[in-house]
Amino acid sequence: MTSNTIKEIVKIGLVQMACSEDSKANVQEAEAGIRKAAEQGAQIICLQELFQTPYFCQIEDPDNFKLAEDIPGPVTEAMSQLAAKLGVVVILPLFEKRSAGIYHNTAVVLDTDGSMAGRYRKMHIPDDPGFHEKFYFTPGDMGFQAISTHFGKVGVLICWDQWFPEAARLTALSGAQFLFYPTAIGYQAFDEAVADKQVAAWQTIQKAHSIANGIFTCVVNRVGKEGQINFWGGSFVCDPFGECLAQASSQEPEVLVADCDLGLIEETRQSWPFLRDRRVDAYQDLTRLYIDPNAT
Amino acid sequence: MTSNTIKEIVKIGLVQMACSEDSKANVQEAEAGIRKAAEQGAQIICLQELFQTPYFCQIEDPDNFKLAEDIPGPVTEAMSQLAAKLGVVVILPLFEKRSAGIYHNTAVVLDTDGSMAGRYRKMHIPDDPGFHEKFYFTPGDMGFQAISTHFGKVGVLICWDQWFPEAARLTALSGAQFLFYPTAIGYQAFDEAVADKQVAAWQTIQKAHSIANGIFTCVVNRVGKEGQINFWGGSFVCDPFGECLAQASSQEPEVLVADCDLGLIEETRQSWPFLRDRRVDAYQDLTRLYIDPNAT
Repeated sequence: MTSNTIKEIVKIGLVQMACSEDSKANVQEAEAGIRKAAEQGAQIICLQELFQTPYFCQIEDPDNFKLAEDIPGPVTEAMSQLAAKLGVVVILPLFEKRSAGIYHNTAVVLDTDGSMAGRYRKMHIPDDPGFHEKFYFTPGDMGFQAISTHFGKVGVLICWDQWFPEAARLTALSGAQFLFYPTAIGYQAFDEAVADKQVAAWQTIQKAHSIANGIFTCVVNRVGKEGQINFWGGSFVCDPFGECLAQASSQEPEVLVADCDLGLIEETRQSWPFLRDRRVDAYQDLTRLYIDPNAT
Repeated sequence: MTSNTIKEIVKIGLVQMACSEDSKANVQEAEAGIRKAAEQGAQIICLQELFQTPYFCQIEDPDNFKLAEDIPGPVTEAMSQLAAKLGVVVILPLFEKRSAGIYHNTAVVLDTDGSMAGRYRKMHIPDDPGFHEKFYFTPGDMGFQAISTHFGKVGVLICWDQWFPEAARLTALSGAQFLFYPTAIGYQAFDEAVADKQVAAWQTIQKAHSIANGIFTCVVNRVGKEGQINFWGGSFVCDPFGECLAQASSQEPEVLVADCDLGLIEETRQSWPFLRDRRVDAYQDLTRLYIDPNAT
């Protein structure tokens, strides 16, 4: 695989944080992270899932709905102003209050002029011990999209979405050059023995989305112990061949910056042209939950 | 993740070979590999793609169609007898002559009584420098299936199929407990600099199929230099969490045997229940080649 392409570098920034109970302090830390990333030249900067609060889904408590906010609302507006001031794209995860009783786990994409370029609502909602998201989040109804920004076409998916090849594929087919995964994932005390395996599986499947689709993947996860969960950080960026370009610590807050050469998308897809050979005539059963066997 | 499940072990055997110009010798080596795997207790034994011949698709030569054979035909029959004699399942890749001018890259699954349990015809056909398969192989028309055998439900996909998450997903949704990938993949002289990256991507995406689907993945690849291609071997078996259970050499012929605990499928899918949460209401565009943007 040789490159004759002129390099077209887009610099990505990921803000990996530990969250406290103080929402204002979390927002300030996020803003500081965005500034730091921008100072290092980052052009598209992504915050972690639900960055304003501790991961409140460890329990089911109706009081937590108070943490949600309208979009646009105060945080969107503050971050819009910051994006415009710095001339960067910001991917801003929010706990969205859409209407009475309808809440989403959302990310808005703010363009370099501070305008809202697009919005993604988490489509796949987990519900596991310690991750009671189905109580809080109505599954998204906006599908999978590429959102055009000044610095490129951005696909946003959120945390649990990362386990579903369908989500990555549909976002890539929509023209995205980057998959961003704002995330809140960690291991629990009872899972400590398999924590390394979980981290490995999490890295593997997201690298595979890059490989299958010839696209950059950018994952930003929180760090720190909150209640029963040890969030494992490890935010990373990988290229369209699944190779890691930069990776953050598993325990410390960090602003991670990586250069992405957009020319690699075309180069990788020419070299191993998977998108040419999809059997779209034979994929219709992907819209089924399961393909039950005939009586045997 | 803790297991209270009673173990239900199925032993897999993979026969990794170097192929010569002598088809009879290749078939004999394959038979010897099957016997050796069976002696070690293997119950489902898989041969590599096009194991009877060198990888003839490096050039486009109509003479090579002579290498194809009917199914059933002499090799199927010999292998059926061997499967029955040893009481094992054999996954037998063949260059299938279906009709005048219609040839497939096929694998048949032979059950423990020697009967043909099912047949898979390679759905995704590559065509790259050194891999001119579109000249020889009509794309399969049998879709993705789980084939029931005495030792479990077997999904077979072939080589290039390994890059397509859709193929793995549809096979898993059909009830397969194992994905088998008979393969012929290597790097070429002009790609030597990126050979390690190619091998890593190849391992990553196949492990990801295990993770996404909670299923065992068993890959068998050839070794040896043929013409311009260095086949990289490295046959492996991984568990439903994507963890490697056994891996063969990158250069030597080898019979690889691994224990697969079927209980891990249920356990893994309960622990990280991805199949519960697929958004089948939002996947219909997977049957499109590309989702063209609106005029902008």
